[in-house]
Amino acid sequence: MKRILLQVAYDGTGYHGFAFQENILTIEGELNSAISDLEGRQVEVIGASRTDAGVHAKKNIAVYDSFMNIEPEKVSGALNARLPDDIRIRGSYAVREDFHPRKCDCIKTYVYTIINDRYDIPTRSRYASFVPVPLDAAKMDEAARYLLGEHDFKSFCSVHTQAESTVRTITDIGVSRRENEIEIRVCGTGFLYNMVRIIAGTLMDAGRGRIGPGDIKTILEAADRTKAGPTAKPQGLCLEDIVFLDETGGSV
Amino acid sequence: MKRILLQVAYDGTGYHGFAFQENILTIEGELNSAISDLEGRQVEVIGASRTDAGVHAKKNIAVYDSFMNIEPEKVSGALNARLPDDIRIRGSYAVREDFHPRKCDCIKTYVYTIINDRYDIPTRSRYASFVPVPLDAAKMDEAARYLLGEHDFKSFCSVHTQAESTVRTITDIGVSRRENEIEIRVCGTGFLYNMVRIIAGTLMDAGRGRIGPGDIKTILEAADRTKAGPTAKPQGLCLEDIVFLDETGGSV
Repeated sequence: MKRILLQVAYDGTGYHGFAFQENILTIEGELNSAISDLEGRQVEVIGASRTDAGVHAKKNIAVYDSFMNIEPEKVSGALNARLPDDIRIRGSYAVREDFHPRKCDCIKTYVYTIINDRYDIPTRSRYASFVPVPLDAAKMDEAARYLLGEHDFKSFCSVHTQAESTVRTITDIGVSRRENEIEIRVCGTGFLYNMVRIIAGTLMDAGRGRIGPGDIKTILEAADRTKAGPTAKPQGLCLEDIVFLDETGGSV
Repeated sequence: MKRILLQVAYDGTGYHGFAFQENILTIEGELNSAISDLEGRQVEVIGASRTDAGVHAKKNIAVYDSFMNIEPEKVSGALNARLPDDIRIRGSYAVREDFHPRKCDCIKTYVYTIINDRYDIPTRSRYASFVPVPLDAAKMDEAARYLLGEHDFKSFCSVHTQAESTVRTITDIGVSRRENEIEIRVCGTGFLYNMVRIIAGTLMDAGRGRIGPGDIKTILEAADRTKAGPTAKPQGLCLEDIVFLDETGGSV
């Protein structure tokens, strides 16, 4: 038996999120089908990030146990031949047999993209949220700094969360503008349900002057979802990267 | 009567190109329908660039004559309410009554995007051509320099062209790489049928070492379509910008 790690990229537009749901199109469901077809038995992957419906990934991580005599590096090609075009395995290799992508320390990087212009740009609208109201990216960046470090992010978490603790650590966050495109880049060791999208929605409130940058501190302290901004649309969100810190898991 | 200029952006994926064709989905056809609905009479636009099927635009230009009592700047909003989401009017204003977007000097900028990696990236595949063979962007850039200036581009033109002359001027061209994405950016006063896509296909041949950068000179001199590389796929191509030099046409 070999535990195989997969680097998975996908366009989330047509999927009801990563997590498997019976009879519903999900990334995990497609992965399970392709791997089961390859292995000739029922296989279920373990994913690192259960991204929401409509959210994209350039690199999510999934692992499964293979009983085949196949070079781990060749699994990517074999699976891509069995997967729809909007899911691609960008790399595959063996990891230690007890490697679990949700139980190992890692840094995840999410990018939230906003088209901030009078009208939307059709070639960007699948992968960005369109905001016609002028946003001040410098103010958004200033507001974002208050989220750096370890905090109770209860205000920035869906009330439907099942997490025991809402304390999380953001290791890096920044907001930048290039012409009519604003990018929120946030890195952290883990994120709560809807957390990045609520952060994006709240930073947009700061960008349009509904709240001041310093109000982020008050919102954090309130530990109350209703104090933060709206949950930004899923299509603007992309899981860019996951880096595992536990090196025995391989240089993922 | 007022001649109105429209800045048009579109995702060309679902369209059979810009140019109107009876009973076929085209950008021009959609523009004509929306404007005719607004004006309450049959209207036909004049477009600047008749982009191919599947090619995108961040800024193409179209003009039409309005007999309505509407502020030219408000036409964009009125048309966006009548157009499908994958076509957006990003700006509208009045120009002189004899302004013709194909008869005025302009500089057009096209960008051709290539994903050059082992596997494609689903979030990029609608807007880039995927090439798994390693490409040397520096070699492509060196090759591109031979295309700068005024040349007979007969080798870089579809044999189905109806152009009287195949002499055109490229005012700027460059190839750059950022991680796994290669961008060919080319500016010129006008382009022949399929010209940018044939340039892209030929530069890819240089990038993979099928031809040397200096061979571009020989290909140009041959004035023979069969000497150049293949026509690169349409989805990698985007009309980025059109700037008119004749200022009486407005600062387009």
